[in-house]
Amino acid sequence: MPGVNPPESKIDVLIIGAGPAGMMCATWMAHCGIATRIIDKRGTKIFNGQADGLQCRSLEIFESFGFGDRAWKEANHLLEFSMWNPSPDGKLRRDDRMPDTPPGISRYTESVLHQGRIERFFLDNIAKYSVANGNPFTVERGVLPIDIHLDDATVDDPDAYPITLTLRHLTDDEAAPEQSQSGSGVSDGLFRSNLAPDDTDDLSRKTSGLEGREETLRAKYVIGCDGAHSWTRKQLGFQLEGEPTDYIWGVLDIIPVTNFPDIRNRTSVHSESSGSLMVIPREAGLVRLYVQLQEVKPDASGRADRSQITPAVILAAAQRVLAPYTLTYKHCHWWTAYQIGQRVGTDFASRERIFIAGDAVHTHSPKAGQGMNVSMQDTYNLGWKVAHAVTKRAPRSILKTYQSERRRVAQDLIAFDHKFSRLFSGRPAKDAADEAGVSMEEFKKVFLQGAMFASGLSVNYGRSMLVAKEGNSKDQGDGTDVDAVGGKVVSKQQLATGLPVGMRFPSFQVLNQAGARPWPFQQWLKSDGRYRVVLFAGNVKHSAQRDRVDRWCEHAEGEGSWLKRCTPPSAPIDAVIEILTIHSAPRTECELLTDFPDLLHPLQQDDKGWSYDKVFVDDMSYHEGHGEAYKNYGVDPVRGCVVAVRPDGYTGYIGELEDVDGLTNYFAGCLLAISR
Amino acid sequence: MPGVNPPESKIDVLIIGAGPAGMMCATWMAHCGIATRIIDKRGTKIFNGQADGLQCRSLEIFESFGFGDRAWKEANHLLEFSMWNPSPDGKLRRDDRMPDTPPGISRYTESVLHQGRIERFFLDNIAKYSVANGNPFTVERGVLPIDIHLDDATVDDPDAYPITLTLRHLTDDEAAPEQSQSGSGVSDGLFRSNLAPDDTDDLSRKTSGLEGREETLRAKYVIGCDGAHSWTRKQLGFQLEGEPTDYIWGVLDIIPVTNFPDIRNRTSVHSESSGSLMVIPREAGLVRLYVQLQEVKPDASGRADRSQITPAVILAAAQRVLAPYTLTYKHCHWWTAYQIGQRVGTDFASRERIFIAGDAVHTHSPKAGQGMNVSMQDTYNLGWKVAHAVTKRAPRSILKTYQSERRRVAQDLIAFDHKFSRLFSGRPAKDAADEAGVSMEEFKKVFLQGAMFASGLSVNYGRSMLVAKEGNSKDQGDGTDVDAVGGKVVSKQQLATGLPVGMRFPSFQVLNQAGARPWPFQQWLKSDGRYRVVLFAGNVKHSAQRDRVDRWCEHAEGEGSWLKRCTPPSAPIDAVIEILTIHSAPRTECELLTDFPDLLHPLQQDDKGWSYDKVFVDDMSYHEGHGEAYKNYGVDPVRGCVVAVRPDGYTGYIGELEDVDGLTNYFAGCLLAISR
Repeated sequence: MPGVNPPESKIDVLIIGAGPAGMMCATWMAHCGIATRIIDKRGTKIFNGQADGLQCRSLEIFESFGFGDRAWKEANHLLEFSMWNPSPDGKLRRDDRMPDTPPGISRYTESVLHQGRIERFFLDNIAKYSVANGNPFTVERGVLPIDIHLDDATVDDPDAYPITLTLRHLTDDEAAPEQSQSGSGVSDGLFRSNLAPDDTDDLSRKTSGLEGREETLRAKYVIGCDGAHSWTRKQLGFQLEGEPTDYIWGVLDIIPVTNFPDIRNRTSVHSESSGSLMVIPREAGLVRLYVQLQEVKPDASGRADRSQITPAVILAAAQRVLAPYTLTYKHCHWWTAYQIGQRVGTDFASRERIFIAGDAVHTHSPKAGQGMNVSMQDTYNLGWKVAHAVTKRAPRSILKTYQSERRRVAQDLIAFDHKFSRLFSGRPAKDAADEAGVSMEEFKKVFLQGAMFASGLSVNYGRSMLVAKEGNSKDQGDGTDVDAVGGKVVSKQQLATGLPVGMRFPSFQVLNQAGARPWPFQQWLKSDGRYRVVLFAGNVKHSAQRDRVDRWCEHAEGEGSWLKRCTPPSAPIDAVIEILTIHSAPRTECELLTDFPDLLHPLQQDDKGWSYDKVFVDDMSYHEGHGEAYKNYGVDPVRGCVVAVRPDGYTGYIGELEDVDGLTNYFAGCLLAISR
Repeated sequence: MPGVNPPESKIDVLIIGAGPAGMMCATWMAHCGIATRIIDKRGTKIFNGQADGLQCRSLEIFESFGFGDRAWKEANHLLEFSMWNPSPDGKLRRDDRMPDTPPGISRYTESVLHQGRIERFFLDNIAKYSVANGNPFTVERGVLPIDIHLDDATVDDPDAYPITLTLRHLTDDEAAPEQSQSGSGVSDGLFRSNLAPDDTDDLSRKTSGLEGREETLRAKYVIGCDGAHSWTRKQLGFQLEGEPTDYIWGVLDIIPVTNFPDIRNRTSVHSESSGSLMVIPREAGLVRLYVQLQEVKPDASGRADRSQITPAVILAAAQRVLAPYTLTYKHCHWWTAYQIGQRVGTDFASRERIFIAGDAVHTHSPKAGQGMNVSMQDTYNLGWKVAHAVTKRAPRSILKTYQSERRRVAQDLIAFDHKFSRLFSGRPAKDAADEAGVSMEEFKKVFLQGAMFASGLSVNYGRSMLVAKEGNSKDQGDGTDVDAVGGKVVSKQQLATGLPVGMRFPSFQVLNQAGARPWPFQQWLKSDGRYRVVLFAGNVKHSAQRDRVDRWCEHAEGEGSWLKRCTPPSAPIDAVIEILTIHSAPRTECELLTDFPDLLHPLQQDDKGWSYDKVFVDDMSYHEGHGEAYKNYGVDPVRGCVVAVRPDGYTGYIGELEDVDGLTNYFAGCLLAISR
């Protein structure tokens, strides 16, 4: 109906871009029941290629939403990292091998699965939880933002919708996927061959009735996850800072036919003078090769001429690196080329109303398997904070921690990537005197240092109202001031030396007290928007310790306590903060109902009896050994301690059972009191 | 169109009944690509209640088809078995506790999940594989067989369709599910409340266009999985032999509100004089209670009056058993009552063309968690044999082993159940002199003996053309003569003491040689219709042993070898028998391509390069310890041995690497030579 004004509506959260960063953000909104829209200009989801390394931390996060098992089952697990270098006589040889993921840091290892499958898992999870939590939504494809305006006057009003956008709904022709328009037979063939059966629904775009028209949308929050060429970033006038390098790399996803021995390991190959490549074995017999393209050089503007690059060019380069081993292929699923460049955004947010995340605020080389992971972890950091702000569970001040925490991570990532890329792209040194060459010893050293970094588990957020630790919030973050207003609460880190405040809560096996089932404890740190207090109850069969536990519970149940203050009286007692207990007395000497105060296994609403899933014990399992949780968490097995865990699984606070003031002050900084 | 003749068609396999036994059979057909129909008289699938204990072996079988992970994730795992008995002063007390599943026997433990979910997993798996293998089918609901005829003249002709059936397609009214017609508010409410989101498709029956009409179907094989009142069994005139007992039991599926301590463990409770109950904790906070109903007695005909039994009657009985502990509930999901009876069918097959399986040939008490499992395992035993007969991969003679193997299992099951039920239903003895009472010591002893039995892992098939072991096939089975025609081949059991011939191949961790990934070895014994030869290659770095391996491979690749004889020349070399290797040399001292003959990692068709998933090593993993596979399988780590494994994962033959005649004779009994 031409001439009619565009339809106008409101939404709490608009996410621009349905790549991994956007999907992760949407997943939080689905789990928190937030009214959300997520739009993407492409007409269908991705079916092949693109980023596909999965860090341990990403798998842990998937599991916290309930789909880690799907990714872990389908992915190829990377177990071994192998280094091939020229021997003194110039011949290629395996120089060293080592575990790809340092043993003991996670219950997962680095893995590989193509992005289309990961997006499938996100979509299914979003559908399930957005319906279950009363605000159903799905990705709207072929929808493009064309205007955005932030109203300064209402930016601090928690009830306002200060952002006004114009969205354009593309016609079907405009929204056709680039992959099938590329003109490359490989990519086009791929588009269908990689299609999983459960993706067939996404082949035909859902009709919105608005095709070819515009609409006006008012939003409380907007999150731009719209990639390296981010429209959102450009509207805000933010810059990416950094420079491209001279190194050009090609990427081939193939089923290789080769006699190279380490084609099923993650392998770096430095040839004597033909450049480098990296082997990333994938699912279904596929292998990804990252190949240095020495003959392709940037022009005067610093950009490479991509028209020179074809799969044949990349293969020929790989063959030169791998000689005398042979390499051919018949099946190529995808290919691309890129010029390494490291850039970080100057700003990650505008007035804590419009945020940008993922490739929109950092770019770097893909070989460290970081890109998709860091992007997803950006919005994993941001999503729950926005949800808490929308529901007025938290003060808007916590939103500043997004830039403080994630811009610092991006800066650290770029510094690492810079070092690693240079070492990887350089010519191997002939001997110690060859200073222009890269020392293979140094390469190995940096790789080993970087393995923790590459797992995603070394992230250590700085002091803020969400992270009660020593030090200065500006120094520990990107410079943003995010200290708590009161600013007084500091953890007693020595009570749980295996739980560094600011880092993710690691997983060790514990047993359910009631049913003896062994669990990786992290399975209970679900991403559902709740904080958790982990009560290391110690040995509850010691009467003095039992008294301490009783007193701690009595305080928590008292009027105006840290727990009661933020929990609506009609809601379950675990609605906002869930208490999980790990004790250290022998399991068979304890009874759930009599040895633990009711608060630790509360009666459930709607006559559903006691809770049986909140009390765990550090004891020997029948079938899976002993988790040694107290030892691994570094907690005294008699006296225990109290740990507050953020909704995203990062340790926020540690104190004694008597330190109720510390717990009270911590939660005063990150949760609002309920209005009665 | 009245007056028109019924439509007539042919099918290789017709399965009657879509309960767990029928679904398992259909799953085999889907994985083997057999033209199949499966019909059920009910209009929709089951959404609640019914059998739900899952044995270790059932989970292993699910995993071999690719959905063990779904069941394992959703199920409640049973870890501990707890026994409550009256103390000398008559008060209830916990007498003992022990692991519910003996440690070390499986990578799973006994688990519980309602039958509707298990049927969902089957349906999804059947859909996926029947499509992938070119013969798509799904369950046809509301279809009833009304006539069946077997043509004696063509019964031995492998190309014939000797069975003629008349099928009646019910009208929608006739096919309405009994559950929603029961008149019980509980059951009816349940019907919807237990509905999982992925079941919504099954609420509306697919329209066949034949509603209210009949059709004629000719089939090569018919498998009757139509329950205790089996129509198929009655048509064949076969009997169930055995007697009901006087014990009546009620079953309640509730969310309990109780202070009984062991409500989340599998628990038996013998009260002093109020009867017994068993607690089976389930998923989603549910608990199943099996409760002895002392006041309900059979009438003169031996049948109990079920109209006396209500949920309130069962609850009151449970409350008496559990006193002084309290028990109430608000949420009841399902309930029923049964009279214990143990019966076994006289015959399991008619002319190896019509088979009956599951409840149609054995009934027993449900408390041992056996019913659904043994039924599924019946058709897990039968399905691949029928598929091999249809495709003429195997001689029809192997079909006789179904009755020999499974009727014997049913007989053993019934004997165990008889003993266990009597001990469980009896009054506890007051003291040693109380001979009318049941000794709690004896109960515990039988429970412990029965734990292996109850895992499904103690099944030990007798000698036959599929099981090359010492002894007499009639004695070791149900009396059927299933010895091989040649009858000469006997395994050297001493070469693999951890692999008893006739029992399922257990799982220990091994590493992939090429990629170092640890795998439970059983993951590679997939149910895809292929036999496997597991070559324990020993230490291939010893040159004498390497010579033995080379000679073994040379023979296998020779014209007319055990391998070539049954493999079509145009098919992949692993199409009928797949060779998997486990060696014992240090992994990092070996290279897949040079230390192992090509046959062990064959070049794949269609230019897909070497196979990287067939050679494994018994070595230390980076993250998950050492599987000690050689030690656990009881195989000499230097010399190794050769093991043939049936398509259903049972060990069939063991010999030295030089015993190629043994291997040749074994496969001559179970696989036909290809016709060239």
